Amino acid sequence: MQTHFIAGEWISGQGDEICSLSPYNSEVIWQGHAASKGQVELAVSSARHAFISWKKRPYAEREQIMVRFAELVKENAELIAETVAKETGKPLWETRTEAAAMAGKIALSIKSYHQRTGTQHKQVAGNDVTLQHRPLGVLAVFGPYNFPVHLPNGHIVPALLAGNSVVFKPSDLTPLCGELAIKLWYQAGLPAGVINLVQGAKETGIALAESTQIDGLLFTGSANTGHILHRQFAGQPDKMLALEMGGNNPLIVSEQFGELDAAVHTIIQSAFISAGQRCTCARRLYIPVGEAGDALIARLVEVTKKLKMDQPFAQSQPFMGTLISRTAAGQIIAAKQSLIELGAKPLLDGQLLNDAFISPTILEVSAIADLPDEEYFGPLLQVARFTQFEDAVVQANNTQYGLSAGLISTRDEEWQFFLDEIRAGIVNRNRPITGASGDAPFGGPGASGNLRPSAFYAADYCAYPMASIQGDAPILPETLSPGIEFD
Amino acid sequence: MQTHFIAGEWISGQGDEICSLSPYNSEVIWQGHAASKGQVELAVSSARHAFISWKKRPYAEREQIMVRFAELVKENAELIAETVAKETGKPLWETRTEAAAMAGKIALSIKSYHQRTGTQHKQVAGNDVTLQHRPLGVLAVFGPYNFPVHLPNGHIVPALLAGNSVVFKPSDLTPLCGELAIKLWYQAGLPAGVINLVQGAKETGIALAESTQIDGLLFTGSANTGHILHRQFAGQPDKMLALEMGGNNPLIVSEQFGELDAAVHTIIQSAFISAGQRCTCARRLYIPVGEAGDALIARLVEVTKKLKMDQPFAQSQPFMGTLISRTAAGQIIAAKQSLIELGAKPLLDGQLLNDAFISPTILEVSAIADLPDEEYFGPLLQVARFTQFEDAVVQANNTQYGLSAGLISTRDEEWQFFLDEIRAGIVNRNRPITGASGDAPFGGPGASGNLRPSAFYAADYCAYPMASIQGDAPILPETLSPGIEFD
Repeated sequence: MQTHFIAGEWISGQGDEICSLSPYNSEVIWQGHAASKGQVELAVSSARHAFISWKKRPYAEREQIMVRFAELVKENAELIAETVAKETGKPLWETRTEAAAMAGKIALSIKSYHQRTGTQHKQVAGNDVTLQHRPLGVLAVFGPYNFPVHLPNGHIVPALLAGNSVVFKPSDLTPLCGELAIKLWYQAGLPAGVINLVQGAKETGIALAESTQIDGLLFTGSANTGHILHRQFAGQPDKMLALEMGGNNPLIVSEQFGELDAAVHTIIQSAFISAGQRCTCARRLYIPVGEAGDALIARLVEVTKKLKMDQPFAQSQPFMGTLISRTAAGQIIAAKQSLIELGAKPLLDGQLLNDAFISPTILEVSAIADLPDEEYFGPLLQVARFTQFEDAVVQANNTQYGLSAGLISTRDEEWQFFLDEIRAGIVNRNRPITGASGDAPFGGPGASGNLRPSAFYAADYCAYPMASIQGDAPILPETLSPGIEFD
Repeated sequence: MQTHFIAGEWISGQGDEICSLSPYNSEVIWQGHAASKGQVELAVSSARHAFISWKKRPYAEREQIMVRFAELVKENAELIAETVAKETGKPLWETRTEAAAMAGKIALSIKSYHQRTGTQHKQVAGNDVTLQHRPLGVLAVFGPYNFPVHLPNGHIVPALLAGNSVVFKPSDLTPLCGELAIKLWYQAGLPAGVINLVQGAKETGIALAESTQIDGLLFTGSANTGHILHRQFAGQPDKMLALEMGGNNPLIVSEQFGELDAAVHTIIQSAFISAGQRCTCARRLYIPVGEAGDALIARLVEVTKKLKMDQPFAQSQPFMGTLISRTAAGQIIAAKQSLIELGAKPLLDGQLLNDAFISPTILEVSAIADLPDEEYFGPLLQVARFTQFEDAVVQANNTQYGLSAGLISTRDEEWQFFLDEIRAGIVNRNRPITGASGDAPFGGPGASGNLRPSAFYAADYCAYPMASIQGDAPILPETLSPGIEFD
C-alpha cells in the first residue's frame, strides 16, 4: 500500500509494518509500512525544496488555497466525521463537531495571521518603517490521536499560511485520519512537497525530529514524549519547538454550587467527554465536606453510571465510545488499581469491557497523602474532599501541569480568588473545562507545554518578525555624528 | 562594599572579588565581591516571596511605578550617560542616546503590554469570554555590557509590568551601571524583593541559571553562552528561556549605490558605531567588482582612517571610544591576525593602542574560500567582492546567524530580491543596519536567538495567556449530549 505522500507522490513505506485497529471491533482498518529513516529524509528534502517557491508566493495565493481547503473540509464533513469515529471509537455526534472545528480553524487562522503577525507600514522621519513576518522553513507536525484531524490542522494551517512547508506525522494510532487530511490538501491544490505525510510510530518520529533539515517541530501529545523532544533539541535554539502536552486538571466545586444537576452536568462534561481523552479533561475533583457535597457526589455517581457507551455508529448515539486502544484502556484500569492500592476508594468502579471499551471510574482519593501527579488519559476521575475553599485551591495548584482548571461556584468572591491564585491556561467558571474558545490562545504553564501557546497564538511560532527601515537612497546627514569627517 | 540588592537591602558579596576597570585609563571604578551561590538563592527566594503580592497588584499600580521610573531615568539622564561612558568607554554623545532610549522604553513597553498581551472581554452565547495574561513568576535577567542599562531594561520593564519579579545579574564588566539602574528602581518605589541585584561573573551566572526557583531566564549576550544556557535548560520546557545572541551581519552594496559619501557613511555607521560593539553591526561587506566598487572601498578606507578615537569625556567628542576591555581589544587583534593567516589582505590594519583602544580594521577576504562564520565583536570589517548580485545574497545568507542585514542600492528590483531572499530579523535598505525601530520586535532566526523576539514582542515571553469562559451559575442545557440522562 502507498501510504506516504512525499513530493506530491504516494509511495510505499520501507519501515516496519503498522496497522490501525478499530478500537470497538478490533478489525484492521488501515495497514502499511512505516516510513524508513531514508524516506523521512526524502520527505524533509521535498518540503525544503517546495519551501523555496511556496514562501515567495503572494500571501493571498496561500490564503486562497487554505480557503479552498476549508470548503473541501465542509463538503467532506461527514466522511471526516465517519473516519475519525471509525479510527478513534468516538461517537459520530462528537466527531461531527471535530470536522466542523477543523473547517472553522481556517478563518480563525487567517484572522490570527493578520492580528499576531502580518505586515505593517509607517513613515517615520522620511523613512519607510515596515514590519513583516517570515516563515521559519520546514516544520514537522506531530499529531495526537484524540483529535486526529482538528489538532494537527491547528498547526498545519498557520504553518502553511505563514509560508512554511510541512512534514506531517500523524499518531500511529490514527494513520487513516492523517491520510484523509492529506488527500483533501492535495485536492485543495497545494503544490507538491508543500505538505508531506509520513506514517509510523516511535522510530519514524525520532527520524523526523532528528532531521538536520527541519526548522521546527510542532507537537501535540504526552508530556513524556514532549520532554524527550525538549532534551533532544538542547543546544539548537535555532529550531523552533512548540510543545502542547497534557494536564492534571483540577475542578473545584464550591459549597455554593448552584443547581445540583447543573453542577453534575458540568462535572460530567469536564471529566468524561471523549471518554476522558481530552487534554483539558478534569482529572481531580474537589468537593466540600458536608451534606451538600455528599449529595453532589451521590448524584454524580448515579448519572455517570447511566452514561451510555456504545460503538460510534450506534443508532441510538452513546455519550462515550471507546478509548483509542485496548492498551490505553488497560492502562487506565492499571492506574485505577494502583490508586486503590495507595488508599483510594472506588465510588464507581470502572471495568475493562470488550475491545477498548471501559466504563467510567470515580475514585475517592482524600486518604492518599501523596497523590501521584499523573495525567490519566481516560475516564478516571479522582475526588478529594475539602473543608476550606482556600486549601482546595492550594491542592488544585499542587501539580507540575497547568493546562485547564475550573470552578463551579455562584459566589463571585470565590471566583475572583480562584482566578488570582490558579495557575492554568484555560480557567472556566460554571462551564465544562473541556470547553475552550477557538479564537483564544490555548496552552498553559508548567509541564503542559513550553510556553508557546497554540490556537489563536499559533501564528506567533510559525513566523519570525522582520523589521525594516528603508530609504530610496543612502543619505549623508547634514549633521554628522561627532568624530566623523568627509572633508 | 555592599554591592548586592536582595529583598530591599544592600548586602556584601561572599564570592570572589571582582572589579570593574575603566577601559580607557585602567583605573578601578567599582569593586566588590561576587554573590555566592547561597546569596543567589537568597535573591531568588526574595523574588519569589515578593512575586506573591506583586502579581496581585492592580496593573495600574505596576504601570505607575514604571512611569515613575521613567521620570527618574529622565531626571538622571546625564548621570546615566556618564556612568555608562565611564564603564564602557563609549563616547558621551552616544551614551546620552542610550539613556534616552532607556527612558523611552517604558512607554513602548506599556503599549506592547496592551497590544500583545493585556485583557479582552466579550460575550458569546450568554457566556463571558475573557482573555487575560499572567506573569510567569521569577525571571532572571542576564545583561550584556554593550548597552548595560538599555538592554537589560528592555527585559526588566516588560517583566515587571506583566507582574513578574526579577533577579538581575549585570555583565561582570559593567557592575556599576547595573547598580545605578537598581538604585533608580528603588527610588521609583518598587517594593522590596520585586527586583534583586546580584553581581558576579560566570559562577554567579551558573548559580542563577541553575536555581530551581526561577521560572525563566532572559538573556542578552554571546551565542556561545546562549547555547550553553539552552543545553542547561534541556528537559525543562516549563522554564521560559529567551535568548538574544549575536550576528555575523552582511551588508551588500549594489553597483547602483547612489552617492559615494552617503554610501560610505551608511557603511561606517553600520560597521564602526559603538566601536563595532552592537550585535547588529555589519561584519561582512559585499562590494561589486569594478571601478565603482574600487572607488567606494578607497573612500571607505580613507574616511574610516580619519575616524576620531578618544576617551568618552574628551572635549572634542570622538566617533569611537574603547572596546569594553583590554582583553576584548586583544581578541579582535587576534581575530584579524588569524584572518590574515587564512589569506585576508588588510585594507586598513587596525592596531591595539593604549588600554582598550583599538583602531578600525578593514580586511579584504575574497581570497578566503571558507570564511569562518564568527561574530567579531569590535571594529573589524570583512570585505568581499562579487560579480553577480544574486551570488552576493547567497554569500550573505551563508551564516548560522540571522540578526541584521542590509542593502545599499537605489534599485527597487534588487531590494525586492534581497528582501525575499535574505534571512534576518532586521533588514534595512540604504540605512545603517545598526538602526532598529524601538516599537518593532527585535531578533532574528538561526543562531541569533531562540525565536523569542524581544523589544516590542518582549511582552509575549513575560506572560502566559489565560482564557476563560464564565457563567454566573452552572447550567443544565435544554438539549443534552446523546447518551446522558438525568431522569
